[in-house]
Amino acid sequence: MDVATRPAVAAEPPSLDALLALARPDMAAVDALIRRHMDSPVPVIPALADHLIAGSAKRLRPLLTVAAARLAGARDDACLKLAAAVEFIHTATLLHDDVVDSSQLRRGRVAAHLIWGAPSSVLVGDFLFARAFELMVGAGSMPALEILARASRVIAEGEVLQLTRAHDLDLSQEVYLEIIRAKTAELFAAAAEAGAVSAGASPERRRALRKFGQDLGLAFQLVDDALDYSGDAETLGKNPGDDFREGKATLPLLLAMVRTGPAEREFWIRTIDRRDQTDADFVRACELMEQTGALAATLDLAATYAASAKAALANFAPSNAWRPALEDLADFAVMRRA
Amino acid sequence: MDVATRPAVAAEPPSLDALLALARPDMAAVDALIRRHMDSPVPVIPALADHLIAGSAKRLRPLLTVAAARLAGARDDACLKLAAAVEFIHTATLLHDDVVDSSQLRRGRVAAHLIWGAPSSVLVGDFLFARAFELMVGAGSMPALEILARASRVIAEGEVLQLTRAHDLDLSQEVYLEIIRAKTAELFAAAAEAGAVSAGASPERRRALRKFGQDLGLAFQLVDDALDYSGDAETLGKNPGDDFREGKATLPLLLAMVRTGPAEREFWIRTIDRRDQTDADFVRACELMEQTGALAATLDLAATYAASAKAALANFAPSNAWRPALEDLADFAVMRRA
Repeated sequence: MDVATRPAVAAEPPSLDALLALARPDMAAVDALIRRHMDSPVPVIPALADHLIAGSAKRLRPLLTVAAARLAGARDDACLKLAAAVEFIHTATLLHDDVVDSSQLRRGRVAAHLIWGAPSSVLVGDFLFARAFELMVGAGSMPALEILARASRVIAEGEVLQLTRAHDLDLSQEVYLEIIRAKTAELFAAAAEAGAVSAGASPERRRALRKFGQDLGLAFQLVDDALDYSGDAETLGKNPGDDFREGKATLPLLLAMVRTGPAEREFWIRTIDRRDQTDADFVRACELMEQTGALAATLDLAATYAASAKAALANFAPSNAWRPALEDLADFAVMRRA
Repeated sequence: MDVATRPAVAAEPPSLDALLALARPDMAAVDALIRRHMDSPVPVIPALADHLIAGSAKRLRPLLTVAAARLAGARDDACLKLAAAVEFIHTATLLHDDVVDSSQLRRGRVAAHLIWGAPSSVLVGDFLFARAFELMVGAGSMPALEILARASRVIAEGEVLQLTRAHDLDLSQEVYLEIIRAKTAELFAAAAEAGAVSAGASPERRRALRKFGQDLGLAFQLVDDALDYSGDAETLGKNPGDDFREGKATLPLLLAMVRTGPAEREFWIRTIDRRDQTDADFVRACELMEQTGALAATLDLAATYAASAKAALANFAPSNAWRPALEDLADFAVMRRA
């Protein structure tokens, strides 16, 4: 793919260094909250939760809550408990997703349900979800609770929609975007909006930060779906080809099917519809995605959303160091290789 | 079992008629809230939720929220959304429990995961849990949110504890009670306490109603565990013998194992530890529970908790019609056959 054809992406490889340096003290406090609140007298709970939470190096979503709050002028630490709650909601959905999808790898580690069993993964997910709401109560902001309760519900709706439509080869790009808006972008949107609300931001700034989070989340998921056909297991922290093996109708696949037309119809029906596949079929699918430009088109759309995310920050002062740091995050979401 | 030996139980068969009549207008409103909030544009969600929610005739937990609020003097309808939230939390835990236990029957119907699959049951459970928190936000009471968020976390801890200790034949009565206090009694306690809080009850009355709910919940679960060895499928709405087949260490089983001693040790190790069973083994287990008085002792303990629940209401005026109605509920919990 020709990187030069992708719009609105920084010429320099983007880095999260500035954002991570700015957020370091806050994120250390968030990390301490996460450790304290995943504890339980029932030993399997912290063991299983730690397996997943320790595997998360970036903590993108709580980082978004903290950065949105600070960009909006937060001087107190009200955002920290909300950030920890956001990570718990995210971890709970990962635990349940891996059970639902029977995934093998997550964050570079064997999926929790393969070690502790699916029942423990379901119940520890419930524990973390409840803990998230305890943390939000501790933060004391009813509007933030409303935002994150709604997001939790929308995520579940998105997951069910994906479950019932995931193998539908006639899925439209529109429904695909509806699914990723619900299952992924909604938590990014809510994470940023909750941060803004905890800082007492104006409705306009609250909407702007929500929009930043949502478009960032869409870019992030589109790249995720592209990496499943172009990344490698070591940098990804999960197996590439998982979506193909599960016959999951993501955008690269939907575009490749449309663009290869009748010539490859039998190939897609066998490999995706009937899930009758070999490793060579996955290699062939990746080649078809390159040749038809399906991967490039997916990454182009991601870049468009990243640009839209950055544009949402236009009314924040460029001299506020959090603004360029968040702009870097949008670029990073598109350029990352894992 | 000789009913005459059971303490503190009404001579007349207890009835919920008075309570149900008092609560009828409130529960009709709760029902409307439940119907409205289980709706979703994703069709499988209301279908699956309705399968479970329509099967619930008594709605004991939301009834407890409403009755506690009214007994504490509530004049507005703040308790109704909390009551609907309580039913959603309960339904979500049932959906996840049935996946965890691979149960066949629930509320007289085929368990949802056998119709829609375990993934849908997990995700619709998450949807209902999130909806519960949206309803609580709508009720606008931070203390009620705190009570129910904490309860949700304690329930999950109880479920995990049960999962990891369920087949432990050396489980002490103490740990068994700790498990049922968390997985069952906590939601009864929180349901009543949230009702009290929504009515602006004093701390003393709030504690009294929490205590009523907790002891009622313990009585309720003890009778449930006894019915699994003495009820029949038609009135129970689930298969008797499920606990035996799963080798679940409930009180009737723990007592029967202790009381039969070395004479039956091989029988319990084979049927419970190794789960090598026939239908005749279940009949024999029921006989041993009758002969050793293990069932009677379980029901006696239930009656003791029911009496303690009633005693917790001592400081409410007997002329308040909700008090005798709740006392009937405590008696009903012990005398019920399903």
